[in-house]
Amino acid sequence: MSCTRSGSESESASGSERGRERLVVIGADAAGMSAASQARRLKGPDELEIVAFERGHFTSYSACGIPYWVGGDVAERDQLIARMPEEHRARDIDLRMRTEVTEIDAAGGRVRARDVDSGAESWTSYDKLVIATGARPVQPELPGIDAPGVHGVQTLDDGQALLDTLARTRGRRAVVVGAGYIGVEMAEALINRGYRVTVVNRGKEPMSTLDPDMGRLVHEAMEGLGITMVDDAEVTKVLTGDDGRVRAVATQDAEYPADVVVLGIGVRPETALARAAGLPLGAHGGLLTDLAMRVRGQENIWAGGDCVEVLDLVSGQERHVPLGTHANKHGQIIGTNVGGGYATFPGVVGTAVSKVCDLEIARTGLREKDARRVGLRFVAVTVESTSRAGYYPGASPMTVKMLAERRTGRLLGVQIVGREGAAKRVDIAAVALTAGMTVEQMTALDLGYAPPFSPVWDPVLVAARKAAAKVRAF
Amino acid sequence: MSCTRSGSESESASGSERGRERLVVIGADAAGMSAASQARRLKGPDELEIVAFERGHFTSYSACGIPYWVGGDVAERDQLIARMPEEHRARDIDLRMRTEVTEIDAAGGRVRARDVDSGAESWTSYDKLVIATGARPVQPELPGIDAPGVHGVQTLDDGQALLDTLARTRGRRAVVVGAGYIGVEMAEALINRGYRVTVVNRGKEPMSTLDPDMGRLVHEAMEGLGITMVDDAEVTKVLTGDDGRVRAVATQDAEYPADVVVLGIGVRPETALARAAGLPLGAHGGLLTDLAMRVRGQENIWAGGDCVEVLDLVSGQERHVPLGTHANKHGQIIGTNVGGGYATFPGVVGTAVSKVCDLEIARTGLREKDARRVGLRFVAVTVESTSRAGYYPGASPMTVKMLAERRTGRLLGVQIVGREGAAKRVDIAAVALTAGMTVEQMTALDLGYAPPFSPVWDPVLVAARKAAAKVRAF
Repeated sequence: MSCTRSGSESESASGSERGRERLVVIGADAAGMSAASQARRLKGPDELEIVAFERGHFTSYSACGIPYWVGGDVAERDQLIARMPEEHRARDIDLRMRTEVTEIDAAGGRVRARDVDSGAESWTSYDKLVIATGARPVQPELPGIDAPGVHGVQTLDDGQALLDTLARTRGRRAVVVGAGYIGVEMAEALINRGYRVTVVNRGKEPMSTLDPDMGRLVHEAMEGLGITMVDDAEVTKVLTGDDGRVRAVATQDAEYPADVVVLGIGVRPETALARAAGLPLGAHGGLLTDLAMRVRGQENIWAGGDCVEVLDLVSGQERHVPLGTHANKHGQIIGTNVGGGYATFPGVVGTAVSKVCDLEIARTGLREKDARRVGLRFVAVTVESTSRAGYYPGASPMTVKMLAERRTGRLLGVQIVGREGAAKRVDIAAVALTAGMTVEQMTALDLGYAPPFSPVWDPVLVAARKAAAKVRAF
Repeated sequence: MSCTRSGSESESASGSERGRERLVVIGADAAGMSAASQARRLKGPDELEIVAFERGHFTSYSACGIPYWVGGDVAERDQLIARMPEEHRARDIDLRMRTEVTEIDAAGGRVRARDVDSGAESWTSYDKLVIATGARPVQPELPGIDAPGVHGVQTLDDGQALLDTLARTRGRRAVVVGAGYIGVEMAEALINRGYRVTVVNRGKEPMSTLDPDMGRLVHEAMEGLGITMVDDAEVTKVLTGDDGRVRAVATQDAEYPADVVVLGIGVRPETALARAAGLPLGAHGGLLTDLAMRVRGQENIWAGGDCVEVLDLVSGQERHVPLGTHANKHGQIIGTNVGGGYATFPGVVGTAVSKVCDLEIARTGLREKDARRVGLRFVAVTVESTSRAGYYPGASPMTVKMLAERRTGRLLGVQIVGREGAAKRVDIAAVALTAGMTVEQMTALDLGYAPPFSPVWDPVLVAARKAAAKVRAF
């Protein structure tokens, strides 16, 4: 969910012509500024000049935190900003805000940038380039989609605009379009602000990153929270009132009154610049890199964060996984390599956690359809357990689904829906996936046990036992 | 902390002479009854007769839950009992309560048992034997240790006796002797009951299962909870009043007034029977088994739970780790093997979690002194982080210590002290230890991230990064 873009103006002389290298960074959010900061740690300003272009107003902020700011859990926008422009500048990073890169000339080793306010353009040469242009929200082409009261939540500016709308529609009706991570988190935010919330979702169940049977649990729990869940519904238009503002969302079947509409349909890699420059893109539209996060086929261009595809270690194929935690790792790795060190990003296993009020949702690895798509045969089991010893106060139910490969018994994926203590349990499976463990091996895992923290068989162990038995039975 | 013993009387004819095998189980708690139940699942009463001896009043209970019953979090004793004697009997297990096994005749394939109430003794032959005699609390030989008001907390009877004492000394002064898991959990229990609590501890810091620097954090946090912490103190005697009841605990330096004293000094394997039978014991006094939990050198005797030693997969040496979660696994594995299946227990990595009020404590793998003892050279790092994104409400500080082997960078151990969300994070390290991961590999782990659950770099990742850097620097 990190999201960054850029642009600016500058002299064209290469840094190396002046006795030091110049690193240019496009996009000043998690991946870009982590890369810049790490490169600076390894090489001082005498050795390396760093120029970073950012087309927006902010640097290094947590887009993942926006729902909690909108919902009121986080009081101030600036709490979401890890590092302000002046902090970066104090570390000898030439940060050019509100400056959008409009062209990458990879053969010439330069970028063209435009001052967003003045429109002035110029070229800046680089010895090394980092592309960290982030992602852009999917914006459906629908009548009325641009009406006042319809909001995306990708940037801090988006968040502020939404808060302004909430301030004037306080306590009325909201429709959230999309029921993925952003959708369900925004549903929570709007509940917290006192709205009656309807979530309209294209999938058969919410959270399509889960299998439908687990998504069903999310559906039921969200209804239990008073949220109206409309699944299997395509939004056909946004209806406006006489004042031009949104008044409802229409699907093929019905209309849902709305004083505010939040779009949470997902994001795509922001790679128009890279595409125009002839850089290699994958099936999901993201840049393709090698293990050192260098753009494939390029000597001196790196890319990371939401604009790249990453290797899924379980399926062996590339995916687009826009998450701040990956963007930060990428930046760290790129900065190390650009700064003369050595680091690699082996890939992801697809871990993600979220919550809606007290409902916790987690997944890692492959869903059933992912496994089928890559030719894996598997067993799937689902178990019910509790977060703590059954007799301990606050023990809450937890459903764990586990997939394992037939024959080998290799763990393929885990999905968890529950309450307190459910989501981070997925980390057990994330490590096991990384290590290539079988579910039989997992049955012997020495997990933390005490009555306030787990039943004597941790829910993940219960699932592993059942999965291992099913693997053996085949 | 599971704790079981046994004894009884019976005919001497071997089950196999009557066309079916007889399995005898000594001890009807976690390990013993898990073994019996699993064996019964695999073999019906026509094939396998199962006789279980239990010298106490209860079966299959959670000794780990006693502190929470004493503290009032768990209302009723029976909530701690997973399965009552009649439930076991309904599954064709011949359970003989209040019957203590007084001798194992391994050569003759029989055990002698005594009815605790009548004193009657007799021999019972077996084809297969499971020893699950549990552990017994360390009881220091001190003047006054048997005075009314001094309590262990190993059994449900112990817990009831303590509760009776609390009922008559309500809201006064308590001294807990020992500051390991049981000691700190009992401190919490007594605080919850309104006592002024003093913890007297032989070690330099509480929680000697942690390194002293991490134990120091526990010391400080417990003082912050209003508990008086007396470290580095040897109890020399228990002082009694005119009524013969405890009135104080004396150390070499001071006296600590006490209306109730709780002993939480630890437990030792209960292996007197096994020793007398000539079965192999390890350096910690526990039975030694093979990977299938069969007693070494024996064809038809298995052992599991608190009476055995287990292989520490990190140090490569045997340890005694009395924990219900292992006892349950052992029982499951023994029952599978006895029932004609195949299962093994590869060993432990030494994971343990606990809490004192809102303080969470966790460890896995080796402490510094463990690593030194087995000849490992290592780097150690300690980091401070938070349980959630720093800006998210409820983010609480967390200290993570990590040990990694020099040169190889292999993870050796992790210790965590923090608040909500700290303890179960140790599972990440438990899986990584099992998989033999290096800290460098761990830096790339794809752990669950969302602001309510973790900073963008999970505290375990922060520690791994620092440890990896230190390994590289050597």
